[in-house]
Amino acid sequence: MKTSYFIIIIMGIAMAGMAAKIMLGTSEHKADTGLEETSAGPITIENIMTRTSVRAYSDRPVSEATVDTLLRAAMAAPTARNAQPWQFVVITDRAKLDSIAVNNQNIKMAAEAPLAIAVCGDMSKALEGHGQDYWIQDCSAATENLLLAAHAMGLGAVWCGIYPIPERVAFVSSLLSLPDHIIPLNIIPIGYPKAAGTPKEKFDSLNIHYNNY
Amino acid sequence: MKTSYFIIIIMGIAMAGMAAKIMLGTSEHKADTGLEETSAGPITIENIMTRTSVRAYSDRPVSEATVDTLLRAAMAAPTARNAQPWQFVVITDRAKLDSIAVNNQNIKMAAEAPLAIAVCGDMSKALEGHGQDYWIQDCSAATENLLLAAHAMGLGAVWCGIYPIPERVAFVSSLLSLPDHIIPLNIIPIGYPKAAGTPKEKFDSLNIHYNNY
Repeated sequence: MKTSYFIIIIMGIAMAGMAAKIMLGTSEHKADTGLEETSAGPITIENIMTRTSVRAYSDRPVSEATVDTLLRAAMAAPTARNAQPWQFVVITDRAKLDSIAVNNQNIKMAAEAPLAIAVCGDMSKALEGHGQDYWIQDCSAATENLLLAAHAMGLGAVWCGIYPIPERVAFVSSLLSLPDHIIPLNIIPIGYPKAAGTPKEKFDSLNIHYNNY
Repeated sequence: MKTSYFIIIIMGIAMAGMAAKIMLGTSEHKADTGLEETSAGPITIENIMTRTSVRAYSDRPVSEATVDTLLRAAMAAPTARNAQPWQFVVITDRAKLDSIAVNNQNIKMAAEAPLAIAVCGDMSKALEGHGQDYWIQDCSAATENLLLAAHAMGLGAVWCGIYPIPERVAFVSSLLSLPDHIIPLNIIPIGYPKAAGTPKEKFDSLNIHYNNY
């Protein structure tokens, strides 16, 4: 039973992929966008392009399994020398979510979010020397994976920066009982969106240079 | 003509989505992974989970349109206060790619890559005060978008860290004639993979905490 549905999924994806291939091939202006390479192309890139920050959520709860998928996506990010210098704190406690909202006006949407995730750097796993700060880049990549996975599953989320603002780091560290070697990079309120969001248009060809700036 | 192919794509995606919904619903262990929320879910998350660093490339060239799609995906990333503090240098010059490979053993794969992209922070757009360093997080999110878009289009890429290692920053700044306010965060060699890659298993439930660390 399960196998036959799986076959339908694969067939459906293949069908969409083939049609996309033909369409892109016959289009005058989009003759080669690279999107025809795999059937994952158009859907994945659409997901990247349509993700936007969501700051208002419905009452609908988010299942534990959905949260698990978000965390798996986050931990699939690349890290410098595969150090994986991260820890994730899932915040579902109503009092803590409300406290975050009250403490920081930039995260006031936490008051209505069913949960938030704090992506943290783990200094016990961070590289030494000049590479120590790569944890910031690694945890940022994990955060972006989490946001994209949330959007793909119909959730809305918003990246609220904590590190390197000292008072924000101090507040979150205290609230979540973080030991000294765990640094909160951000807090991501998550929930099902109250309304559909419109992504900002951020593409600017002036940001692109070739071989020399 | 184009419209009818588009309809087939939508039908294919819908078909895959419905089958996925039924399958997930009937599975005992995956009753609610959130993946049934949108048809984009399974494909996007699969793309996140299967992306891996690719360090060997075939001779196949990468089209300008494909590079354009990568850059559009990168610029779709969220940035603190929407500052968009980034610039992108596309490196296709063979001598420059070879020079990068010779200078830094960690980027030796640039010698066989058809191109590389340097994701750079633009200090003229960065926030002021404590928020100045948010450019690192913003540019890291853009980089992850770029890597995911590359994987979705059948390309392979690898994130090679430059900032904050002073000698690496100095070398790349000189090679690409970067002005003082432009800081290279990384160099991403890109090409069609020589062979299929196997993603690392990085999920670790010990990295997950609830409400308190």
